[in-house]
Amino acid sequence: MDNCVFCKIVGGKIKSEKIGESDNFIAIKDAHPAVEGHTLIIPKKHMVTLLDIPNKLGNELLEFEKKIAGKLMEDKKGDGFNIIMNNLSCAGQVVMHAHIHVIPRKEEDGIRFFTKK
Amino acid sequence: MDNCVFCKIVGGKIKSEKIGESDNFIAIKDAHPAVEGHTLIIPKKHMVTLLDIPNKLGNELLEFEKKIAGKLMEDKKGDGFNIIMNNLSCAGQVVMHAHIHVIPRKEEDGIRFFTKK
Repeated sequence: MDNCVFCKIVGGKIKSEKIGESDNFIAIKDAHPAVEGHTLIIPKKHMVTLLDIPNKLGNELLEFEKKIAGKLMEDKKGDGFNIIMNNLSCAGQVVMHAHIHVIPRKEEDGIRFFTKK
Repeated sequence: MDNCVFCKIVGGKIKSEKIGESDNFIAIKDAHPAVEGHTLIIPKKHMVTLLDIPNKLGNELLEFEKKIAGKLMEDKKGDGFNIIMNNLSCAGQVVMHAHIHVIPRKEEDGIRFFTKK
């Protein structure tokens, strides 16, 4: 898609810090990281949510997620990690090109989930 | 594992509201839902984190996640959804048997992520 920032990143038209790649996905550093090591996994083709990712890419996606998360743990960015995917704007999705957050975590890092306003 | 609550649920020794099943996963209602429709996807075999899920189950897992999330949307539980997996205790994992949260979302539902303490 012409106006999609993640399509531009995949196509090299916008600079990013790519930290890994598989046949159908790339991993880049989040431009606004919650913590050091916060990574995004992005399908190379434009799609909007999880529901658009073909089932046949599941094995590759799982393997790639494990590789990225495992590397973050090896590099001591965290002692655990969250996998988070926000699907559509009411769920917090900002860029309307599917992406999965991989967030390394440490005790007392100050991040909370499920906070009610 | 003898003392694992999710193994007991899979084995039928603890009651749960099962809402779906595939060869290697079940989906149940979260016992402490953040919102109505909050669902957990759990591998039938005992494993602790994402890193323990065999790559070859990725296609099945993706298909099952899409089915569960799609059904929640069809049932008007939400207009979007989060997929969240907490891996190890520092990342908020409470039950040490891998599980994936599927959380239907609506505008102004009061849930926030990434809140710094």
